[in-house]
Amino acid sequence: MSGSWSKKAISEASKIIKVNTIASSEAKNYSYAPDPKTWKISENSAYVHYCPNETIQGVAIHEAPNVNKPIISDASSVILSEPLDVSKFSLIYAGAQKNIGPAGLTIVIIDRDFMELGNQKIPNILKYSEHSIAESMLNTPPTFAWYMAGKVFKWIKKQGGLEFFKQQNYSKSSKLYEYIDSSDFYSNNIDIENRSIMNVTFFLENDELDSPFLLHAEENGLLNLKGHRSVGGMRASIYNAMPLEGVEELIKYMKYFESKYG
Amino acid sequence: MSGSWSKKAISEASKIIKVNTIASSEAKNYSYAPDPKTWKISENSAYVHYCPNETIQGVAIHEAPNVNKPIISDASSVILSEPLDVSKFSLIYAGAQKNIGPAGLTIVIIDRDFMELGNQKIPNILKYSEHSIAESMLNTPPTFAWYMAGKVFKWIKKQGGLEFFKQQNYSKSSKLYEYIDSSDFYSNNIDIENRSIMNVTFFLENDELDSPFLLHAEENGLLNLKGHRSVGGMRASIYNAMPLEGVEELIKYMKYFESKYG
Repeated sequence: MSGSWSKKAISEASKIIKVNTIASSEAKNYSYAPDPKTWKISENSAYVHYCPNETIQGVAIHEAPNVNKPIISDASSVILSEPLDVSKFSLIYAGAQKNIGPAGLTIVIIDRDFMELGNQKIPNILKYSEHSIAESMLNTPPTFAWYMAGKVFKWIKKQGGLEFFKQQNYSKSSKLYEYIDSSDFYSNNIDIENRSIMNVTFFLENDELDSPFLLHAEENGLLNLKGHRSVGGMRASIYNAMPLEGVEELIKYMKYFESKYG
Repeated sequence: MSGSWSKKAISEASKIIKVNTIASSEAKNYSYAPDPKTWKISENSAYVHYCPNETIQGVAIHEAPNVNKPIISDASSVILSEPLDVSKFSLIYAGAQKNIGPAGLTIVIIDRDFMELGNQKIPNILKYSEHSIAESMLNTPPTFAWYMAGKVFKWIKKQGGLEFFKQQNYSKSSKLYEYIDSSDFYSNNIDIENRSIMNVTFFLENDELDSPFLLHAEENGLLNLKGHRSVGGMRASIYNAMPLEGVEELIKYMKYFESKYG
């Protein structure tokens, strides 16, 4: 449990199966992600589920965990941000709406043997094996989202593939974290090794300045910087579609705002 | 059970609840829909589920059934084809891809009291009550499909609303059925009172002519006329977006084809 999404996954899964929370950083407000080496995995567990990038907190586990169980990863907010060795996972699922395409599509990468272990008594629409047999057309698929995802995959290749995006994403997030760390006006409270490259969260030292910060940001064309209501502060979501120039504009604005109100 | 979709619904629901099939036209290849007056509803049933328009067979139940139980309707292929008194139903669900907008969106109209009767121990994503509380944003909604649905709703109003479409749909389907009935070359085997106004199925007397019929149809810009593989023959799906002129073109082509091959 390293943030809001893995917490939700635990809560929902608990309605159907026995869940053992093998690690949690909730007590420290998810300001870090528990090191996979410390995870207390039960011997008889069927799989381990985790969320490599928690969007609300901006906390990430950058390396695929080395555990002795099948791994399920909610990669919604980090898929395609850098190369990924999918063979380390039994199941990766990801909502399309971050790095893939329009909302309303979820992509699943699943190991065939693992897929067949699913409960066979549930309705077909809930079985990955049935979706696989039907080549993802068990139900009428979201055709427009498929089409757009195809366009995005081609765009990714054209830009230089995932190696290009890895470099760009680390470059974007590093620049932003460097500036935040150098300032007394802004702060980020996430352990350095767990900082997300997709969602950079930060706080203004004086939260009474949150509203003017957001207002002037919007006036400068910098949108959706408000942090999730459960954590407050700010959040810059810098998915693949955000160019380096966008982050540079944000830093320029943050410097200007600090010089004016700091 | 009046066609392929209600049959599937029974099969899937049976994995979770005890289903009592209260009527079936399967023995007669769904060439009619069992009259709701003949449905043998169990006294302790929680609800009655039916499909008012079966797309594959082209068979419909045009009036809302008068039964003494909550009614659930799979209105996917008939919603917005004509005015509907939603107060007669406890739950109406409909995939958007026929008369509403792009595939990947399902619309639910549900009675609030009925909604609260749902099983509370299942994951939130499967509970209509939770979707309602979250104003349909429990998960990230399919934004593009929402937007397009809004455009279609406005277009429907502009055309004259559901009264206009009722008139147009009955006019379109009547013309087509009239021609089919007048011909010895084409036939439709559905009981007249159960004929769909959305999906007009028909057979060529000589099924060896199916392929040339479809080939020349395509050459004339008349697409997707092939019937579902489970029933064969032809199917003209004439949803709201199909104008009267489209149906007139189809009849013209059918006459031409009959004159050439009949």
